[in-house]
Amino acid sequence: MEQRAFQDYYPDQLSYCYGCGRLNEHGLQVKSYWDGDETVCIFEPKTYHTAIPGYVYGGLIASLIDCHSTGTAAAAAYRAEGRAMDTEPALRFLTASLHVDYLRPTPIEGLIEVRGTIKEIKGRKVVVTTTLSAGGQVCARGEVVAVQMPDNLLEVPPP
Amino acid sequence: MEQRAFQDYYPDQLSYCYGCGRLNEHGLQVKSYWDGDETVCIFEPKTYHTAIPGYVYGGLIASLIDCHSTGTAAAAAYRAEGRAMDTEPALRFLTASLHVDYLRPTPIEGLIEVRGTIKEIKGRKVVVTTTLSAGGQVCARGEVVAVQMPDNLLEVPPP
Repeated sequence: MEQRAFQDYYPDQLSYCYGCGRLNEHGLQVKSYWDGDETVCIFEPKTYHTAIPGYVYGGLIASLIDCHSTGTAAAAAYRAEGRAMDTEPALRFLTASLHVDYLRPTPIEGLIEVRGTIKEIKGRKVVVTTTLSAGGQVCARGEVVAVQMPDNLLEVPPP
Repeated sequence: MEQRAFQDYYPDQLSYCYGCGRLNEHGLQVKSYWDGDETVCIFEPKTYHTAIPGYVYGGLIASLIDCHSTGTAAAAAYRAEGRAMDTEPALRFLTASLHVDYLRPTPIEGLIEVRGTIKEIKGRKVVVTTTLSAGGQVCARGEVVAVQMPDNLLEVPPP
């Protein structure tokens, strides 16, 4: 995947997110990409991202789904307008709601894949559904309602 | 609050959870307590737990709601049986589903309070609803469906 990640287009002051900010050195640094009409994120959990030993912490799963989905929402909104992600005006999204169904324990060995599908784009709202897989099995499903960030939050100063 | 936290009753091999395990030195170490018929968790976010600057990361909010709710589910199941949390057989809970509605940005300065209410106990399932407050305002609401952990997962070896 040679393309630039969605999150690498975010302006500096919005790049400190613990989940996906490229400037948050303590964070997860989630990276999301187009794969046809779907989006994909590959993540390697740390050994301490455990729930019960051998399995991934559910809060990490929620975090991956959250950031991958808001990134997907932004990319989908640009694509719907026929614009590249580095063009103005900036389109960034917040999470209005997050739902995760945990289908089975997620093994912590190896890579996690989160795949996103755009379910709906309507006005300032984008709904993204996701599957999270590990070890060749779908372990969780997610749905995020993302809303476009108001201008006053787009202009916050960096920390 | 002089009482022992729910999570401090978990056996060692189940105390490595990134969210609430007392033996996970990289983790959040969530602590939950009874407050009458409700449960409460107080958490101080780190400066790097940011979403956009000044506000708390949504994945952290989901994590706090998740661990506080599964802890609440365990405590509620013991209370329903009239047993103390250090008696056998052990009752531990996994998250079957997690839902979070983000009502407003959560300020990162100061403390976060998560309050849990037991909505339903039925067989091996407990449903917990939560409010998450900061700066005197409710910033998010959560609902977790927790299910009792199968015996084979209770007996995993420590990492």
